[in-house]
Amino acid sequence: MTFAVIDADATTAKAIAGTPFTEPEYTGKEYALEDVRLLAPTLPSKIVAVGRNYADHVAEVFKESAEHLPPTIFIKPSTAVVGPDAPIKIPEFATRVEFEGELAIVFGVPCKNVKASDWKSVVRGVTIINDVSSRDLQFADGQWARAKGIDTFGPLGPWIETDLDKFDFTNLPIKAHLTHDGKTETKQDSNSNQMIMNIGEMVEWVTQSFTMLPGDVMATGSPAGTAEMVPGDVIEVEIPGIGTLRNPIERA
Amino acid sequence: MTFAVIDADATTAKAIAGTPFTEPEYTGKEYALEDVRLLAPTLPSKIVAVGRNYADHVAEVFKESAEHLPPTIFIKPSTAVVGPDAPIKIPEFATRVEFEGELAIVFGVPCKNVKASDWKSVVRGVTIINDVSSRDLQFADGQWARAKGIDTFGPLGPWIETDLDKFDFTNLPIKAHLTHDGKTETKQDSNSNQMIMNIGEMVEWVTQSFTMLPGDVMATGSPAGTAEMVPGDVIEVEIPGIGTLRNPIERA
Repeated sequence: MTFAVIDADATTAKAIAGTPFTEPEYTGKEYALEDVRLLAPTLPSKIVAVGRNYADHVAEVFKESAEHLPPTIFIKPSTAVVGPDAPIKIPEFATRVEFEGELAIVFGVPCKNVKASDWKSVVRGVTIINDVSSRDLQFADGQWARAKGIDTFGPLGPWIETDLDKFDFTNLPIKAHLTHDGKTETKQDSNSNQMIMNIGEMVEWVTQSFTMLPGDVMATGSPAGTAEMVPGDVIEVEIPGIGTLRNPIERA
Repeated sequence: MTFAVIDADATTAKAIAGTPFTEPEYTGKEYALEDVRLLAPTLPSKIVAVGRNYADHVAEVFKESAEHLPPTIFIKPSTAVVGPDAPIKIPEFATRVEFEGELAIVFGVPCKNVKASDWKSVVRGVTIINDVSSRDLQFADGQWARAKGIDTFGPLGPWIETDLDKFDFTNLPIKAHLTHDGKTETKQDSNSNQMIMNIGEMVEWVTQSFTMLPGDVMATGSPAGTAEMVPGDVIEVEIPGIGTLRNPIERA
């Protein structure tokens, strides 16, 4: 097991000594990407997630306008994290489990009270999170920690894209493709231009309360189109410029 | 900095090699307890907290009967944890911050799907948590992660009591004493016999969803009597057989 730098065309993994949070020191070992198994690119001490941050998703899930239900903050624990291609395992008591494809921000330095305009200076890069959510438990509990914090309900990956300057974060497509009974449908097909708070505003808001540590993740909210997954399905979340996070669904 | 075993009359700290999660290996160094500064006795990867678990507290805070609002689960992050005598720092935007004195369970082994009757087999010991809560943010956000997860809002200690057999967990007093303007009042004066779910039931419920890791904490809910704290105050949570967790309040 090693950290590695993935080249721009996603064909080669170059092993590095140390962690992703310092300048890469290459060990000289290289692997074809197809020959390696990717794990989650970070093991966060916490995932701070902003909920209700896309007006279209608020409307579909919460049945009220976004004006009445502003963005909120919840936490997913480290034990929910799995990597690309690892199964999302649904326990018997979670009877309506949905995917939520989201842009994830990976912090690079310990930070607190970050100004919105400075957000890129504290971030190592971006990745994808599937904020897997058991809707039945979410509404039964009121609090979302259990519905969204079950083991394996936090797929992360496939890697951290560190070149932030190549993105227009105000116009970033987010898609989710669900394969059920061998048939693939695009269920989420939205764009970060639907965000209620932008990334800088969220970083400022979150770091007013929480010290974020290197490797910690901020999930930026799910757009519309979430839908149920059942064992046997495969869910793929795609963000152009980052990649695709694919996970099969199994019974726990 | 070292881990240490505190003797039964709380006068001596005997340093140990390693961690609290293996048999203690004494280094031979001993200190008078009054000469040492205690830190939080565990740095949990997560604190899984059961809310609304005392009928009297549900009535005072939620203004509804416990039958309509069953226990729920939320998460406090590791960055909220501070030790005994460390200040609870209230930011400007948290305008009504209250203490909640609670019994805290410290897990000793990685575990999942623990049966209620087996709870003591996975637990290293018990300590005290002050589940500091900003009521304004708690109700404004709906989700409690921010109101209860702000840096310093998770005091833990003063130590882990490992002799579980000395307690009657169905009849354990819990008190909180608030010192304001030099005057100390006992605000919480309740008992674990007011719990809606008992400890074993909570361990079973929590570990159905979350793998708990060594050092992880389960907070068991606050009884009635919570009240506001302001900078300059001192809050002490007392559980006989464990000790007293004392923290001063400051402006962040």
